[in-house]
Amino acid sequence: MRYELYYWPSIQGRGEFVRLALEEAAAPYVDVARTSDDDGGGVRAMLALLGRDDVARPSFAPPFLRAGRLLIGQTANILLFLGARHGLAPRDEGSRLFTNQLQLTLADWVAEAHDTHHPISSGLYYDDQRDEARRRAESFRKERCPKFLGYFERALEHGRGRYLLGRSLTYADLSLFQVLAGLRYAFPRTMRRLERRHPKVVALHDAVAARPRIAAYLASERRISFNEDGIFRHYPELDAPSART
Amino acid sequence: MRYELYYWPSIQGRGEFVRLALEEAAAPYVDVARTSDDDGGGVRAMLALLGRDDVARPSFAPPFLRAGRLLIGQTANILLFLGARHGLAPRDEGSRLFTNQLQLTLADWVAEAHDTHHPISSGLYYDDQRDEARRRAESFRKERCPKFLGYFERALEHGRGRYLLGRSLTYADLSLFQVLAGLRYAFPRTMRRLERRHPKVVALHDAVAARPRIAAYLASERRISFNEDGIFRHYPELDAPSART
Repeated sequence: MRYELYYWPSIQGRGEFVRLALEEAAAPYVDVARTSDDDGGGVRAMLALLGRDDVARPSFAPPFLRAGRLLIGQTANILLFLGARHGLAPRDEGSRLFTNQLQLTLADWVAEAHDTHHPISSGLYYDDQRDEARRRAESFRKERCPKFLGYFERALEHGRGRYLLGRSLTYADLSLFQVLAGLRYAFPRTMRRLERRHPKVVALHDAVAARPRIAAYLASERRISFNEDGIFRHYPELDAPSART
Repeated sequence: MRYELYYWPSIQGRGEFVRLALEEAAAPYVDVARTSDDDGGGVRAMLALLGRDDVARPSFAPPFLRAGRLLIGQTANILLFLGARHGLAPRDEGSRLFTNQLQLTLADWVAEAHDTHHPISSGLYYDDQRDEARRRAESFRKERCPKFLGYFERALEHGRGRYLLGRSLTYADLSLFQVLAGLRYAFPRTMRRLERRHPKVVALHDAVAARPRIAAYLASERRISFNEDGIFRHYPELDAPSART
């Protein structure tokens, strides 16, 4: 069976967390919106599926994944499904739940990273909420980002291996890699400062990046570059060093 | 076994989604932070558990639930666990995943409702982000809230019963009830207008409120009143009718 991933074709966005899991699992998939309209693909196919009235279990927004008869939405939910199917999550109940818990915490972090450039409305341009973005980004850099980083550093300190759940990789590790990569792109000055105090998170990032399938994926054309349409955007004014530091 | 719920004692907040599930399941639980410091409870006990370095699987924030040896954080994750244990979610994989998907969509909606009054930082007072709150609330009232309501109305139209998954109640129904109740409190004028177009969501709210255990809970002292420290806050200026409507 070949999975069908539905997500915006020109950004990493939330779809990237799913792409990383599919790549690490070496699972056959088609990134539907990146295929041609002529072949029944493209954004058109994605939006059609999102808006169709005869879909029994509709999704609120991309990404969503078709897996045979199942149509599964919400990033963390897709990963819960893929994790169980492809050995990217532990089998015992407590560890499986903790993997999901870590993923949901990463989802919160990602949403806050997004809101640094869109604190008022996703329906408005960045330029129309620039002043508010400056204020929100300051709070993100000084309070929220260090708090999230500290949490994951602590989780890694408590673990018994290089990964969040111990010696075996889970989809939460792939996602933490992605969040760190995104934050480095969006807030390079801030992250240079913060990473010094979070060596285990950095080591995890490097371990994930070095996994053969992930390394091959990152070097391929399938990996879309970070850009200013995605979740992690580099606007230098949002990465300003604090005057109070 | 008696569950231990850890959440802020003076607000409904995200803990309320867990309380509703525990109440509907008639599961024995203690709301730890609402018990006395002298008995080892209170906020002190909650914060101690959150900050302790010897907790193998720490939570990022309340709520979290102790269930025997398990300590489970993140609202949707706690509900995933309780749903499976107490018959508040279907057993088949597709339906179980869809329940989780709906819950995660509700969580997104709740986060956006929160950000109407705190668009810049949770660490600042409302009064320090009032102008930004007005702008964000407008976008919430006009775009986001109608979009979420429409999504759940559609999900109910597709179902084969009064509940989101069909004839049987799930924890996602309890949560949708709670979100509607909260929005009515925070945005009464907006909701009077929007509810007319979403009769199935309103009917679901009423069906949940009429369930004997939920009705008894809502009438009890265990149900904390909505207030301006919680997620759903009534600031009349954020509920202003649009000048453009």
